[in-house]
Amino acid sequence: MKRIYNFSAGPAVLPEEVLQEAAGEMLDYRGCGMSVMEMSHRSKMFENILAEAEQDLRDLLAVPQGYKVLFLQGGAHLQFAMLPLNLMKNHTADYIITGHWAKRAWSEAKKFGAANAIASSEDKTFSYIPDCADLPVSDNADYVYICENNTIYGTKFHTLPNTKGKPLVADVSSCFLSEPMDVSSYGVIYGGAQKNIGPAGVVVMIIREDLIPDSLPESVPTMLRYKTHADNGSMYNTPPCYGIYMCGKVFKWIKAQGGLEGMKKINEKKAAILYNYLDSSKLFHGTVEKSSRSLMNVPFITGDADIDAKFIKEAAAAGFENLKGHRSVGGMRASIYNAMPEAGVQALVDFMKNFEAENS
Amino acid sequence: MKRIYNFSAGPAVLPEEVLQEAAGEMLDYRGCGMSVMEMSHRSKMFENILAEAEQDLRDLLAVPQGYKVLFLQGGAHLQFAMLPLNLMKNHTADYIITGHWAKRAWSEAKKFGAANAIASSEDKTFSYIPDCADLPVSDNADYVYICENNTIYGTKFHTLPNTKGKPLVADVSSCFLSEPMDVSSYGVIYGGAQKNIGPAGVVVMIIREDLIPDSLPESVPTMLRYKTHADNGSMYNTPPCYGIYMCGKVFKWIKAQGGLEGMKKINEKKAAILYNYLDSSKLFHGTVEKSSRSLMNVPFITGDADIDAKFIKEAAAAGFENLKGHRSVGGMRASIYNAMPEAGVQALVDFMKNFEAENS
Repeated sequence: MKRIYNFSAGPAVLPEEVLQEAAGEMLDYRGCGMSVMEMSHRSKMFENILAEAEQDLRDLLAVPQGYKVLFLQGGAHLQFAMLPLNLMKNHTADYIITGHWAKRAWSEAKKFGAANAIASSEDKTFSYIPDCADLPVSDNADYVYICENNTIYGTKFHTLPNTKGKPLVADVSSCFLSEPMDVSSYGVIYGGAQKNIGPAGVVVMIIREDLIPDSLPESVPTMLRYKTHADNGSMYNTPPCYGIYMCGKVFKWIKAQGGLEGMKKINEKKAAILYNYLDSSKLFHGTVEKSSRSLMNVPFITGDADIDAKFIKEAAAAGFENLKGHRSVGGMRASIYNAMPEAGVQALVDFMKNFEAENS
Repeated sequence: MKRIYNFSAGPAVLPEEVLQEAAGEMLDYRGCGMSVMEMSHRSKMFENILAEAEQDLRDLLAVPQGYKVLFLQGGAHLQFAMLPLNLMKNHTADYIITGHWAKRAWSEAKKFGAANAIASSEDKTFSYIPDCADLPVSDNADYVYICENNTIYGTKFHTLPNTKGKPLVADVSSCFLSEPMDVSSYGVIYGGAQKNIGPAGVVVMIIREDLIPDSLPESVPTMLRYKTHADNGSMYNTPPCYGIYMCGKVFKWIKAQGGLEGMKKINEKKAAILYNYLDSSKLFHGTVEKSSRSLMNVPFITGDADIDAKFIKEAAAAGFENLKGHRSVGGMRASIYNAMPEAGVQALVDFMKNFEAENS
């Protein structure tokens, strides 16, 4: 069996132990004689898998009373519509534009009400997080929206915006469970699983119960109402069972790393290896303002598109996959999610050092 | 490793060879050093998995030119809304009510226009398929909707309704790829994967291209427009990659069984073993009119709830799982999808014979 270092931005590397366990249980989950893929979602066995996944997530984030945990489908993209459909009581919401996905969410929200961009970092290609201490939050805003970690640009909110009392809604797809969060600071936390917590096809949401509307206009599809999923424990219809099972395994793996405090230490150490090298290199340069740097996604360039291409090609040949930057920005990007081992980051930096020596 | 006979109505049994292959590839897909769960959906490797799955499905069903194949999320339930949102140009559609799921689809459609029930078999607890040769199809109906195989009640349309020229939309979740279909008779064929073709979390749709609207009211979410998915080859956003990969494996497995003609012969033989016994038994009775019987879902009763309960309990202890009927109808149900081996049906009938001998 071969395993490479996979720096994909998502779907992304998963913990090897988790994959090994899943492989071992594929035909017979704990002696029940079935795969988890084959189980009725109404069976006691699957209900336990779902309940354990939820409880482990609650433990990891110390989710306070008054929040529902939902397992949904359709990716973050479906949430771009569900959030305004469910939360826009005053038909007004404020968006902070820190990249491609925040912009998509904003653009979708405009279908359903007044969605205002109250801050943006587009002036410098989204290479920083704007100062959000005193933004012009709308008086009647139903929520303030952020994309907390920007996968393409490699930025992260290290201080949450001052929402002036409005609920904060955060897409945390690419920083989910990478470090502790104070859930009580948020109205909604949600993310696609396929970056840090599991396979594509699952969205995990933590939502303050009072934000789930009891009623909505008749024209809102049943499946697009948070109440439908909240009232039925994410089992209104058949959920993405196998994906939830894999997320549950990842939650247990994170617990074994020392929970989110432990995970943060590991992630800071890994990121420091790469950032320290970038800061000292004469060939490679990080593209993000230091104070906005993400622990998860690290974009960098040489400033020469031909050398970038040569690097990506040679790196792939050496077993470092998916280092190409997003098609919208070019250059390189190393996504070093929870499951990327420190050895992988160290090996990448060693390879970059050699490449620098040979190409300068 | 233990494997039991799993008669679950869905999620349901998958071919053992398919699960074995998936287990073997879990950490390293064909020497690439990654799991399919870890692959970027924009990678050449995943694009090939998706393209092969689509082509194998097209081969199996001999899908004619002019139809799109889509891989979607959200279960059949999300389609209950997407279908009327996309197809109701005249805000009118006709529904044939043959069970719980057809009724749910109908009820959801009423949110978006005039959804008419033009036939129903509710008068006899959905134990038959109504005669659909000359129904009062609405002049301005945008489509006629059926649930082709009714999982709970064990009925199947053996003759398609005369739609009087209107497009036929069929939920085939529980009979997908169980026998040949003439795709050109349909406007839309769709189904959740979790019964006959893969794990939960994937919906497969075959849709006539001219039914995909170029434009829709602004208020329709981007993700709920078929055009979004059709124009982007099911990759507008991250698809449920692993589920699609599993469906692709099942498609290849069906090809190896002799395609849909081969599958039909196998399914007819399996169903005959069970139906013949039910027709001869003095204890157990099928609940469906003979001319409407499904090859996939076989409900039966003893007429005595205590004996039913005893049977279900003893069967489970003997390794026959998930024989309890749907909570809305009680009794028993054996779902004998493509992946249920003939030996499983034979073993069940042997067990039923013994039970009958001991309990009469």
